[in-house]
Amino acid sequence: MMILDKISTPNDLHQLTLEQLIQLATEVRELIVETVSKNGGHLASSLGTVELTLALFSIFNFDRPNDPDQIVWDVGHQAYAHKILTGRRDQFHTLRQFHGISGFPRRAESTYDAFGVGHASTSISAALGLCLAKKLQHKIGRVFAVLGDGALTGGESYEALNHAGDLHANLIVILNDNEMSIAKNVGAVSETLSRFRINPRYQRAKRDLERLVRSVPGIGDQLWNTANTIKDGMRLALLPPGAIFEIIGFKYIGPIDGNDLSQLMEVFSLVKELDGPILIHVHTKKGRGYSPAEKSPENFHGVGKFNPETGEIFKKPCAKTFTQIFSETIIDCAGMHEDVCAITAAMPSGTGLTDFAKKFPERFFDVGIAEEHAVTLAAGLAAGGMHPVLAIYSTFLQRGFDQIIHDVCLQNLPVIFCIDRAGLVGEDGATHHGTFDLSFLREIPNMNVLAPKDGEELRRMIFAAVDRRAPVAIRYPKGSSDFGFRSEEPIHWGKSEIVFESEVESENQIAIFAIGSMVKNSIDAARILESEGFSATVINMRFLKPIDREMILQQASSIKKLVTVEENVLAGGLGSAVAEILDDAKLSRRILRIGIPDEFVTHGSRDQLLDLVGLTPEKIARRILDETAN
Amino acid sequence: MMILDKISTPNDLHQLTLEQLIQLATEVRELIVETVSKNGGHLASSLGTVELTLALFSIFNFDRPNDPDQIVWDVGHQAYAHKILTGRRDQFHTLRQFHGISGFPRRAESTYDAFGVGHASTSISAALGLCLAKKLQHKIGRVFAVLGDGALTGGESYEALNHAGDLHANLIVILNDNEMSIAKNVGAVSETLSRFRINPRYQRAKRDLERLVRSVPGIGDQLWNTANTIKDGMRLALLPPGAIFEIIGFKYIGPIDGNDLSQLMEVFSLVKELDGPILIHVHTKKGRGYSPAEKSPENFHGVGKFNPETGEIFKKPCAKTFTQIFSETIIDCAGMHEDVCAITAAMPSGTGLTDFAKKFPERFFDVGIAEEHAVTLAAGLAAGGMHPVLAIYSTFLQRGFDQIIHDVCLQNLPVIFCIDRAGLVGEDGATHHGTFDLSFLREIPNMNVLAPKDGEELRRMIFAAVDRRAPVAIRYPKGSSDFGFRSEEPIHWGKSEIVFESEVESENQIAIFAIGSMVKNSIDAARILESEGFSATVINMRFLKPIDREMILQQASSIKKLVTVEENVLAGGLGSAVAEILDDAKLSRRILRIGIPDEFVTHGSRDQLLDLVGLTPEKIARRILDETAN
Repeated sequence: MMILDKISTPNDLHQLTLEQLIQLATEVRELIVETVSKNGGHLASSLGTVELTLALFSIFNFDRPNDPDQIVWDVGHQAYAHKILTGRRDQFHTLRQFHGISGFPRRAESTYDAFGVGHASTSISAALGLCLAKKLQHKIGRVFAVLGDGALTGGESYEALNHAGDLHANLIVILNDNEMSIAKNVGAVSETLSRFRINPRYQRAKRDLERLVRSVPGIGDQLWNTANTIKDGMRLALLPPGAIFEIIGFKYIGPIDGNDLSQLMEVFSLVKELDGPILIHVHTKKGRGYSPAEKSPENFHGVGKFNPETGEIFKKPCAKTFTQIFSETIIDCAGMHEDVCAITAAMPSGTGLTDFAKKFPERFFDVGIAEEHAVTLAAGLAAGGMHPVLAIYSTFLQRGFDQIIHDVCLQNLPVIFCIDRAGLVGEDGATHHGTFDLSFLREIPNMNVLAPKDGEELRRMIFAAVDRRAPVAIRYPKGSSDFGFRSEEPIHWGKSEIVFESEVESENQIAIFAIGSMVKNSIDAARILESEGFSATVINMRFLKPIDREMILQQASSIKKLVTVEENVLAGGLGSAVAEILDDAKLSRRILRIGIPDEFVTHGSRDQLLDLVGLTPEKIARRILDETAN
Repeated sequence: MMILDKISTPNDLHQLTLEQLIQLATEVRELIVETVSKNGGHLASSLGTVELTLALFSIFNFDRPNDPDQIVWDVGHQAYAHKILTGRRDQFHTLRQFHGISGFPRRAESTYDAFGVGHASTSISAALGLCLAKKLQHKIGRVFAVLGDGALTGGESYEALNHAGDLHANLIVILNDNEMSIAKNVGAVSETLSRFRINPRYQRAKRDLERLVRSVPGIGDQLWNTANTIKDGMRLALLPPGAIFEIIGFKYIGPIDGNDLSQLMEVFSLVKELDGPILIHVHTKKGRGYSPAEKSPENFHGVGKFNPETGEIFKKPCAKTFTQIFSETIIDCAGMHEDVCAITAAMPSGTGLTDFAKKFPERFFDVGIAEEHAVTLAAGLAAGGMHPVLAIYSTFLQRGFDQIIHDVCLQNLPVIFCIDRAGLVGEDGATHHGTFDLSFLREIPNMNVLAPKDGEELRRMIFAAVDRRAPVAIRYPKGSSDFGFRSEEPIHWGKSEIVFESEVESENQIAIFAIGSMVKNSIDAARILESEGFSATVINMRFLKPIDREMILQQASSIKKLVTVEENVLAGGLGSAVAEILDDAKLSRRILRIGIPDEFVTHGSRDQLLDLVGLTPEKIARRILDETAN
């Protein structure tokens, strides 16, 4: 019998011996590898935190009624063990699937998920909130924030640490260091050993001393240099490893081997008796216990289906993705334009900048998980005469909203935002869908907003954006970028193109204004409409802003039924923009606006979700037919 | 003759003696005090940085052709001396006035304004961008970021410091410490003296040692305790004052007296020979050289007109502001509901939380200039069973956009956003107008968006929001909240009210849907329309979301001409919302949407700006008449 069979709540771990816990860790790992190999998911991080999860559950009380100890997992992609051990073992095979459990902690899914997560660097803020709530309610439960070294590069983590230290909050932060970004920062201690420090009085004294020492015949110069190095080195070498956390008010404990259960349990037993704020620094190994993932944790960070025996990752045969087109185009642009440079916020691979970084290392900037800084840095580079391209996922660009307004658009600086994963992203679900960008970008003065119908158009849009020297946002979805379009019309700024016209003559004329990912689906919908006796025209808008007023008015003047289709929330997007044009032209024309309804969309495959929200060709056609019938 | 008369560019300072520079500082101060006493503005900060500005200009080369040294002033409210000494002395009397020069550095205003600012914590990111641009272009100019201790609490500052340290960028950061928030942080070094640190090996050794020492007969226990305190204290006391900056890769210089010209010049001469990244820590005195401001720098931070001789601040007789109503109401709410708590991001006074903080200190949280953290902290408090109210200016809430979506609305947590300074704020200008919130909040699922027509309604909305237990945003403008309305209709969630109906019978019927600040102006416009023979109805929408569908359809079914009026950008706001309702109801009705056009609005008085964008009663009426005539 498996030990896992005996576990239905975290407190069941209190009864286990160390040997049983070690066995349990193995069983949990096997379940994680088995499930992720079928469903895809975040493997390496979750394998790394198995012992950490077990140790927390075995020492603390996450089942205390009305006042449980609570964990906020930063990002949450390391919480699979947490899910398995908090009553979701039986549903775990549905991980990330439509109608299955989420890949991230969700309050709606379990009371053990104290706070929903998905974006980096929120855990300390949220845990501090939970912690202060407990204090105000005279509760005794402890609150943990568990975050990776990457999440610590986000400014919000620092804001929260600073505040928690200032409040002397009874909070426990576990820094799960698997040697990503933090290595640079904490590791900077060693780099600073050769640094020196000056202030006027110190400088004067130093100059006097220098004169004296150097005047020693023969070896004076060498003596001075050596003494100098040793002295400065000494001073900083005296810093304890967690000094940076102690300065902002945390007790620092560590570093601890985060994959050593007995060490973890010993530390947690100790910590149980201490008040916060405490920072526990644990080292874990990404992919721990599954050798293919240990060997290449990057490949197994977010991974698709794979063979659990061999670690062979199954690749779906796929046409070029938008990301690949971006990747190639930006290199070509940089080859032609010396001022083009590229920025990523810790996602060179995901956004397609790995090759650029190799080819133009001096023009490539990875700022860490720091989207606010990324946007303002881009604005600064642009103000200095460069032409920066920020490659970023739509959902993460939300972090830089104020900076887009304040630093880029208000100053009308030439920054190009290449926005990947716009629209529904699939299995990562609600926290990762990029369904707000058309609306929040459109409302910003000076911003240009584009969306290509395919990869070829993305390429031409990037070149056009470089020529434009203005704030430009180009958004494109996850997945394949080749739909067999053969149109090669050049990009005229602010101009749309007609991509489909029914040859059928009919009274029932329909014009579909579609943007980006929805051009292909609208054409397919138009074909269905044609088969039902309608005459449909599909316009590839290309530009949400500036929008092609002329085309809209021309269609509105001659065609009966107007439809907009967009992979974005309806509020404020393409449908609103077209309605505004008609209003301003004093045309009383009704528009059927098709897009994402006003609710958060769950996880599942992209196709399942497009179907759910009504954005497949069939659903688009059906919707138009239904509305026309009435 | 004044020395100021001889200065037309920064390099003119290179010729001056120390005595002349000291005289110049006095002249600059006098001009600042004189101008701000007439125009209002940010006095205390700008007086504090006069010597700093002079020292920079006298040592560095801000006039080098094509490659000047550059300063990015964080927030920019300390840059008046900079403006006066960079060719804007003659326009300085127009400071913050309509068609005059801006209260903040603006690239469009002067090439010496290397980067436009207004929101905190962007300077290091922007300066790093300028710095990297210089490096890529093989330029030699130096780049400075000057930021206050408050701006350092913002996460973006940390993101940028971290990145600059990592790149070893040739950047000079001047921390202008006037003992606001940073005191807590850097000062935390002293607090940590009594802390202790544990790790397993250290703990074991310590326990062995402890047994040994305590076994000393008679004084063992006392000996152990004393020794322990001294040892731990020693370790942290060895930290140099700038250790936190050195750890992340900066050379730390300081602290320096930032109002001592000769000391500053000596340090800058030294720094000129060093490569970055360098952090210079200067202490300045807010209000320096003007005794009323030195005595109460808070009153002279952002100040209205005052008597320059006496420092007496002229108070405009004014009805209660929205801020005051909020201030009183939130105290009443907290008195009735134990779970209500309040959060500010470093603006307790501006947002009206000073009294709350006194009355409910344990339920009040000032997080520093850290809007991202503020929003997630609120979500965490809400997840823990509290009911937090975040009081914040509209323009700064943009910083927390992603957190509103991801942490509050996705989890449908009861957080109330009380959004002050929504709409046009007046003299602070483009960087501070809160003209985007209706659009960016409306597109978020689960969010409720309200705007009161007056103070009494704000009060009732706050109570209704507390009862609702959902994400709620209430936005209200700067200024008076009493317009003589006597309506006391209770708030029904999602319901509007008719606030004006013409008694005149007319064929020319107009329905005006107005929200928040525009209800009053729309009623006044309706009176003008009435005098022109129109019959107008004004609807106070109260809710942008959920919007009163029933009322909109009812008006649309009976009334000829539909108008929306809002103090928000047109894209995605009230006008869009009403248009969507009509579209969804298959009504082909044109709407005249009146709001802020798609461009950044300049500075000037609120009335001048409302006139500029066409939102005065006269302009609203005129617009409706013009459109109806055609």
